[in-house]
Amino acid sequence: MTAVPYLALIASVLALLLAYYFAKVVLRADQGTDLMREIGEAIREGAMAFLRREYRWVSVFVAAMFVLLLIVPIDGRPAASFAYLMGAVLSSVAGFIGMRIATAANTRTANAARQGASKALPLAFKGGAVMGFSVAGLALLGISFNYLLWVKWLGVDQAFQVVAAFGLGASSIALFARIGGGIYTKAADVGGDLVGKVEAGIPEDDPRNPATIADAVGDNVGDVAGMGADLFESYAGSIVAPVVLASLLVPVFLEGDSLAGNFGDAEGLLMYPILIGALGMIASIIGALFVRGREGRSLSGQLHTGQYVAMALTVVFAIVGTLVLFSGSPTIGDYALSAPIFLAFTIIVGLLGGWAIGFTSEYFTSEHFRPVKGIAQQSETGPATVTIEGIAQGKLSTLPAVVLVVGMIGLSYLFGGLAFGEAGDVIGLYGVSLAAIGMLAVTGVIVAVDAYGPIADNAGGIAEMAELPPEVRGVTDSLDSLGNTTAAVAKGFAVGSAAVTALALFKSFSLTAGDQVFLDINDTAVTIGLFLGAMTPFIFAALTMSSVGRAAQAMIVEVRRQFAEIPGLREGEPGVKPDSRRCVDISTQAALREMLLPGGLAVVLPLVIGFIDVNALGGFLAGAVVTGFLIAIYMANSGGAWDNAKKYIEAGAHGGKGTDAHAAAVVGDTIGDPFKDTSGPAMNILIKVMTIVSLVFVPAFL
Amino acid sequence: MTAVPYLALIASVLALLLAYYFAKVVLRADQGTDLMREIGEAIREGAMAFLRREYRWVSVFVAAMFVLLLIVPIDGRPAASFAYLMGAVLSSVAGFIGMRIATAANTRTANAARQGASKALPLAFKGGAVMGFSVAGLALLGISFNYLLWVKWLGVDQAFQVVAAFGLGASSIALFARIGGGIYTKAADVGGDLVGKVEAGIPEDDPRNPATIADAVGDNVGDVAGMGADLFESYAGSIVAPVVLASLLVPVFLEGDSLAGNFGDAEGLLMYPILIGALGMIASIIGALFVRGREGRSLSGQLHTGQYVAMALTVVFAIVGTLVLFSGSPTIGDYALSAPIFLAFTIIVGLLGGWAIGFTSEYFTSEHFRPVKGIAQQSETGPATVTIEGIAQGKLSTLPAVVLVVGMIGLSYLFGGLAFGEAGDVIGLYGVSLAAIGMLAVTGVIVAVDAYGPIADNAGGIAEMAELPPEVRGVTDSLDSLGNTTAAVAKGFAVGSAAVTALALFKSFSLTAGDQVFLDINDTAVTIGLFLGAMTPFIFAALTMSSVGRAAQAMIVEVRRQFAEIPGLREGEPGVKPDSRRCVDISTQAALREMLLPGGLAVVLPLVIGFIDVNALGGFLAGAVVTGFLIAIYMANSGGAWDNAKKYIEAGAHGGKGTDAHAAAVVGDTIGDPFKDTSGPAMNILIKVMTIVSLVFVPAFL
Repeated sequence: MTAVPYLALIASVLALLLAYYFAKVVLRADQGTDLMREIGEAIREGAMAFLRREYRWVSVFVAAMFVLLLIVPIDGRPAASFAYLMGAVLSSVAGFIGMRIATAANTRTANAARQGASKALPLAFKGGAVMGFSVAGLALLGISFNYLLWVKWLGVDQAFQVVAAFGLGASSIALFARIGGGIYTKAADVGGDLVGKVEAGIPEDDPRNPATIADAVGDNVGDVAGMGADLFESYAGSIVAPVVLASLLVPVFLEGDSLAGNFGDAEGLLMYPILIGALGMIASIIGALFVRGREGRSLSGQLHTGQYVAMALTVVFAIVGTLVLFSGSPTIGDYALSAPIFLAFTIIVGLLGGWAIGFTSEYFTSEHFRPVKGIAQQSETGPATVTIEGIAQGKLSTLPAVVLVVGMIGLSYLFGGLAFGEAGDVIGLYGVSLAAIGMLAVTGVIVAVDAYGPIADNAGGIAEMAELPPEVRGVTDSLDSLGNTTAAVAKGFAVGSAAVTALALFKSFSLTAGDQVFLDINDTAVTIGLFLGAMTPFIFAALTMSSVGRAAQAMIVEVRRQFAEIPGLREGEPGVKPDSRRCVDISTQAALREMLLPGGLAVVLPLVIGFIDVNALGGFLAGAVVTGFLIAIYMANSGGAWDNAKKYIEAGAHGGKGTDAHAAAVVGDTIGDPFKDTSGPAMNILIKVMTIVSLVFVPAFL
Repeated sequence: MTAVPYLALIASVLALLLAYYFAKVVLRADQGTDLMREIGEAIREGAMAFLRREYRWVSVFVAAMFVLLLIVPIDGRPAASFAYLMGAVLSSVAGFIGMRIATAANTRTANAARQGASKALPLAFKGGAVMGFSVAGLALLGISFNYLLWVKWLGVDQAFQVVAAFGLGASSIALFARIGGGIYTKAADVGGDLVGKVEAGIPEDDPRNPATIADAVGDNVGDVAGMGADLFESYAGSIVAPVVLASLLVPVFLEGDSLAGNFGDAEGLLMYPILIGALGMIASIIGALFVRGREGRSLSGQLHTGQYVAMALTVVFAIVGTLVLFSGSPTIGDYALSAPIFLAFTIIVGLLGGWAIGFTSEYFTSEHFRPVKGIAQQSETGPATVTIEGIAQGKLSTLPAVVLVVGMIGLSYLFGGLAFGEAGDVIGLYGVSLAAIGMLAVTGVIVAVDAYGPIADNAGGIAEMAELPPEVRGVTDSLDSLGNTTAAVAKGFAVGSAAVTALALFKSFSLTAGDQVFLDINDTAVTIGLFLGAMTPFIFAALTMSSVGRAAQAMIVEVRRQFAEIPGLREGEPGVKPDSRRCVDISTQAALREMLLPGGLAVVLPLVIGFIDVNALGGFLAGAVVTGFLIAIYMANSGGAWDNAKKYIEAGAHGGKGTDAHAAAVVGDTIGDPFKDTSGPAMNILIKVMTIVSLVFVPAFL
């Protein structure tokens, strides 16, 4: 049993080795023409500069939290501060590595596309996989190391609260990376498009548009770094939550025994989430090796194979691992773990549930199904009806997602109880918390496939800017459109796991507070908290959308200025170049400035409410988690659906490009930009940050 | 004390007499030219035909519920069935009267506008006031009569559950009137505008557009009948909720004594909400008499005077009435009502809170303030940025509304407790339920002012269609724009009271279930219910928006057909008339068909969940009330803001009519149509129907 954290350490080192190997492969590939190299360099410089400046800002926040965790009477001081720092640093390192390689893979993918999709696909995937396995590897490394350090080697008091602080560190980075990245990418995209396409009449990604480089940088800081930090946090949270919850349930097992020191036979339950993390990692590594560029096989088939192999192996490993770990069917206090196989079932429920949520996202956002076709149909009567239908479909898409999430909660609760022969007992909560780690066990592959998308997108942009022949652009477009579908599945995992992880953290929060909170909905403080909490995602959406609007306006002014003041730019005279650097600067500054208010609120609100009234905080978190989940689903799917409705029309439906219907669909797509890439994804991290802050600080509130 | 219900009877008869008098004044006024008379008749016919057909559909539903209430083991059978029927019938009668007079006042207002605003304003107001005082008068009449009949005269068991059934009857009518009316009005408006303005290039309300009459009918069925039924239900609910809650709190006072029969000194608490209803009615009648058309005074000042007089008098009456009713400071069980004046404070909190919510709505939707100006500014960069900013501002507007609602909840809970010298006790819930009746005490004036809007709007349409000189249209436009502002305030009352009433009904639901529900948020069934409940308003919004889209498409097809097939119609050749009747028919059928699914869901969902698990139902209701309130605020304010941003531009900002900025603002306005007039208002009734269904059926669930 004590081998589990070491197994996890080994699995994470293997993941990092795989990332290293993939990075080598990417960097060895040819960068193409001088112009491509130059463009690639500009994108990389912009992206890395943003990351450095963002980290500088965030380090101030991290330092403040570090001190706060030392001062405020939380559990597990002072170790918690150091675990917090480790979470923040490892997440930053993962982001740095992933971004560095993603911004190298883009030019190389564009160059490989000159030899066809089967050369380009594996390169883009490997570029994404560096992010995927850096994220998953460093997160699992951090958790298993922290577990060993505080629980095993140092044996500090309240060691599990210290592990929770690691999760808080990861959340702090994710919070700002997600919000800042989301604002950056859409400011450049919306701002650039509105002047370029609409006013200047030049196509997307045209090198004359001064915002084109900033747009490509945005794909990296938003969809690569932001998403990576988000999933680092999700993954860490999904392991931390059941570990902490199990440690809090030990007194329930042992009927009131204290948390410190002796866990008896319960230790298996504390280890179990880490074991699943290790096994899922190994499965993911194997899955990733299955993605090669084979001629004659469909691109989507090859990408999916990697995912499916990883998922299938995780199921097998989870069943075997569970039976081995709990082979003695241990008795823990009055509870006999009589049927441990049910714990494996909670993992499978999570894995399948996450996949199914992803599938429903695909249904609502792919042009192969009715919702997107319906939105495209509404384009015939103009932008207003496109918008109305897109909003309606996005809201409708919450139905299957919620049904799946509550199904997962109900089933994993049932299985958690059945493992102990006690269906319906509080012990079932352990099962619920396991569903999240089940969902994210294959994080390495999920992030790989998700980060593949922006690399392919960037490659297309570079092909356009470097004026490669149109068939190259055709290849990158086919890679890109595949990325949209796989991204939908990855988003399903991300948002589903966010809800379940936040729920598990919330249960831990309640158990930590114990008898000192009373979360009856009829309690007036809980009611008030519920209203305020449910409101918070609305405000968060409003703030982030307005931020994009303001930042895009700043970009518009600059692009207009350059077209007006640089002679020959609009006409594309040879040798006349736009000042891309200023646009990159504008996006960077706007994103950094605009992320402070929503990011700060996410941390400050639960602290303020918690110090006033812990019951109100309980209601607040419940309201925020539920509404945040709904808004995340709604905004992501509305945005995705508009995007693909536009592409569907561009592919020839309803008259194709240049028609009024197309113009209407472009409006929908632009509205969807902040929906799907800024506000929607920010909800995931919002609800997790607020719950984990509450969990860590609850001893101080009481 | 026994005089209270009789006082309420007298007040309601006075209200009905006032309505009768105003109706006489309206009907006596001149209808104007033959063409005006003809147009007015077409609108009236269409509106009354819709109402008749809607009532026919709804009567099937009402009959089914009547039987269900007889069969299912709820409290207070069989009396509850009859009270239910009475609620449904009285609401229908109020709608019928109000609509009849509103559709008479429109032509007469248009005619009076030929002599200036000071002649037209009082006529339009009186037309609206007929609806206002029919609604408030019949509701208060019904409640006081039911109170007397079941509690005093017949003394049936569980008489207060019977009174609750009266509220359910009112809800049943409001549910379908709101949804059906909302779909009707926007199908005609959106569909007609899209073909007329966009394709055929003819202005709004042009007689050549076959959908113009249907649009005018829509104003009446949506904004008059739908809104009236909604406020009938709100007003009834706001009185019923504290009466029922007080009856459930009696066992708390008397420490376990049964509900049947003896209320001892607690009877004052049961009567108190009815007393406030009676006093507010008298205040409203006086206020309404203050609205006259005086030359030289601002129009808005005159309308506001009526509201302010009614509000101020309500405050005075409430204080005096409270002191008189509880002059002996009675002791009820162990509780001494030591400071009854605090009960009057809860009324004042509600009244001021409702007014303040209305004011924040005005801030977010009036062109005099920053939000609307910001949206207009975004029109310079096209429809996408207009839409993004409108959504952001609408979501942001939930902040002050929620702060005000939780402030009201907190304060009235505190005051409710302080009245008994027991701040923080369960008795404080009584105070919370009183806040709602405080908010709606002046319903008569609120509905009058709200129904004034569509009458003025209709008058403008008639002036256009009847080709009256442009200065007449100028007068009606000034009346209409005033209506937009006053409607914002009325909507604030409606949505604020919906949240607080639903909350009070929810508390009654919990108290009725007693020890048999356990609404801890950590309970898995409650968690699952919370997710499902929070989702329901999203689905409801999606369904109603899609309904508008589909119905508008049907209208578009018909209008296009007429322009294509009727020679000379588009060119406006003399004597060529569109077939308006078919458009009216299409709207009617679409609205009736589309209202069934969302309307049915609102009733069926709580029943299904309740029969499965009452704890889950508790979570479900909490989630639905909170999210429904947020979405109601957000959609109403986004929609209102887009509308006024368009008008702000039409008044000359950003280049005025005919510019790209204006076209962009028109898109926002069209998106906002179903937001503010269909989906948003439907939330109010959704959350109240679901809670009152749960309250009435809870004995059957257990």
